[in-house]
Amino acid sequence: MSSQEQSERTEIDELGEFGLIQHLTKNVELHNASTLQGIGDDAAVLDHLGKPIVVSTDLLLESIHFDLAYMPLKHLGYKSVVVNLSDIYAMNCLPTQVTVSIGVSNRFSVEALEEFYEGVLSACNAYGVDLIGGDTSSSLRGFVISVTAIGEGMPNKIVCRNTAQIGDLICVSGDLGAAYLGLLLLEREKKIYIENPKIQPDLEGQQYIIQRVLKPEARKEIVLLLEELNIVPTSMIDISDGLSSDLLHICTKSEKGCFIYEDKIPIHPDTKAFAYKLNLDPTACALSGGDDYELLFTIATSDYEKIKSHPHISVIGHIVEGDKKQLQTKSGNLYPLTAQGWK
Amino acid sequence: MSSQEQSERTEIDELGEFGLIQHLTKNVELHNASTLQGIGDDAAVLDHLGKPIVVSTDLLLESIHFDLAYMPLKHLGYKSVVVNLSDIYAMNCLPTQVTVSIGVSNRFSVEALEEFYEGVLSACNAYGVDLIGGDTSSSLRGFVISVTAIGEGMPNKIVCRNTAQIGDLICVSGDLGAAYLGLLLLEREKKIYIENPKIQPDLEGQQYIIQRVLKPEARKEIVLLLEELNIVPTSMIDISDGLSSDLLHICTKSEKGCFIYEDKIPIHPDTKAFAYKLNLDPTACALSGGDDYELLFTIATSDYEKIKSHPHISVIGHIVEGDKKQLQTKSGNLYPLTAQGWK
Repeated sequence: MSSQEQSERTEIDELGEFGLIQHLTKNVELHNASTLQGIGDDAAVLDHLGKPIVVSTDLLLESIHFDLAYMPLKHLGYKSVVVNLSDIYAMNCLPTQVTVSIGVSNRFSVEALEEFYEGVLSACNAYGVDLIGGDTSSSLRGFVISVTAIGEGMPNKIVCRNTAQIGDLICVSGDLGAAYLGLLLLEREKKIYIENPKIQPDLEGQQYIIQRVLKPEARKEIVLLLEELNIVPTSMIDISDGLSSDLLHICTKSEKGCFIYEDKIPIHPDTKAFAYKLNLDPTACALSGGDDYELLFTIATSDYEKIKSHPHISVIGHIVEGDKKQLQTKSGNLYPLTAQGWK
Repeated sequence: MSSQEQSERTEIDELGEFGLIQHLTKNVELHNASTLQGIGDDAAVLDHLGKPIVVSTDLLLESIHFDLAYMPLKHLGYKSVVVNLSDIYAMNCLPTQVTVSIGVSNRFSVEALEEFYEGVLSACNAYGVDLIGGDTSSSLRGFVISVTAIGEGMPNKIVCRNTAQIGDLICVSGDLGAAYLGLLLLEREKKIYIENPKIQPDLEGQQYIIQRVLKPEARKEIVLLLEELNIVPTSMIDISDGLSSDLLHICTKSEKGCFIYEDKIPIHPDTKAFAYKLNLDPTACALSGGDDYELLFTIATSDYEKIKSHPHISVIGHIVEGDKKQLQTKSGNLYPLTAQGWK
């Protein structure tokens, strides 16, 4: 279903490794003064002028992290960058550079890789980040992607996971669970398509949840908002494994417990509607779904007034003493939060 | 032939992703003041105190870059780090941090990954570099490795490829061609072993060329020596694709030509002997073999006296005006240098 089959096909071998890199990165623009030299030498040269930097890296493998049957290559390139930038924002930092390495088999054409890099550069432009390097290799089979992101922070404003304090309010940006339900929808349509290629996919009215899985965004504006409101979160993480798992990371690393309220967890109406359609509990999807790339953070109660009415931030509970991590349901029952990884 | 089958076997699933990372990185020691925070958060935190940094990344894929039939996992871990550090030294910089990501299928046990990380940490300790992050993922098949190395340099001493000047002397560290012949030897023995597993591999007297392919080293001491001799090379690259290909990179990027002498190219006696045994020309192996990780650099003629008698540096020719890249053979004939990539 990707467009790689439609257009003309140039074999990777026609360009060679160096020619390929040059071809794919010819449109790279540099945005940051900290990038002294980008692609083209043994290494890129950066100078963050005395500011501390943060570094994060992710590996994305075909058939494990993505399925090219419903993930267009341009979206894949975009998402590969964005999920790494999300880690930088989760440190309360601003990303400045990325490296992108790919391993591809000869089933991919140069045109297919152009699409992928179009997505990579589109994300770089959208977030003001420089593509400064990478590696291009052949693979026996499958598409391998490795992205490393570098960002800069202010010395006393880099926020880790292990510094939540008792009484702090637990906040989450945006809404949760949509990416997981979007994925279930795409998996369902793929299955139907495989069984009968003549049936058109039924994605009517599901734009929101599909966009959340195919074109996730990192929450740059939340980091900028916190700066504007003069709030330094006491801890922060991005939600990639699900609210439950990521909140447990903050609690465990901070050696604290938490208490959250089911009715405070932000879930989009479209997410709820599709969950009900599949006979799933929307709260369970939000807790365990993952791939949301929203920011989960804790703030001192003294900062509550500054954010309480912000439409994109929900206060869902608070940090408590001890090691109990609890969810109070809408009906008032208490359940222990458990990390249910999402495969 | 790797030792992963010999010892007890713990399945990766028994630890889970987070448990696995924790387990594999529990022995990480930090060496550098610039590493403020290593593994365990969304990102590592670094502060190079105003020094410019350099960043390089490499992807290593099973069956493309390495063959586990003769590459022990510990050596693979060591080599994965070293080849990246080599890129940092090639910028005349000192590496300070690495991230290492791996994708592995369930054919690998926890013990096998322990061996791999033993090699990674051994390289980190040998070169004084900190392992600050990475990603651990399952793969459908094959071992996927992605390493990113970060180093620091002095503002006016970072050396690129594109700054060689006419008349500069072309220098190379150590000797060339051994890794390629070591690989041919291992491939030959693998083939014999597959045909008849009872025949013991005949590696007698070939320690040097085998070590050069299985346990390459990055030339830290050359960078330190240049500093000590107060030489800033006018250009530098590490030899990963072969002398010919990498010298052409310097020439092309610098918009210059070169003239080198066959009899000046450093080749170890063991390399020569094994090349003759296979009816190969040792010079061709040195020019096109690759995987040597020696440093190729140019210096101003005024620096010649400082290095002329150094046993680990050979002056093999000089940079010329124009775009001719020539080799003068021992018999006095002239041949154009061509980039023969090495697969």
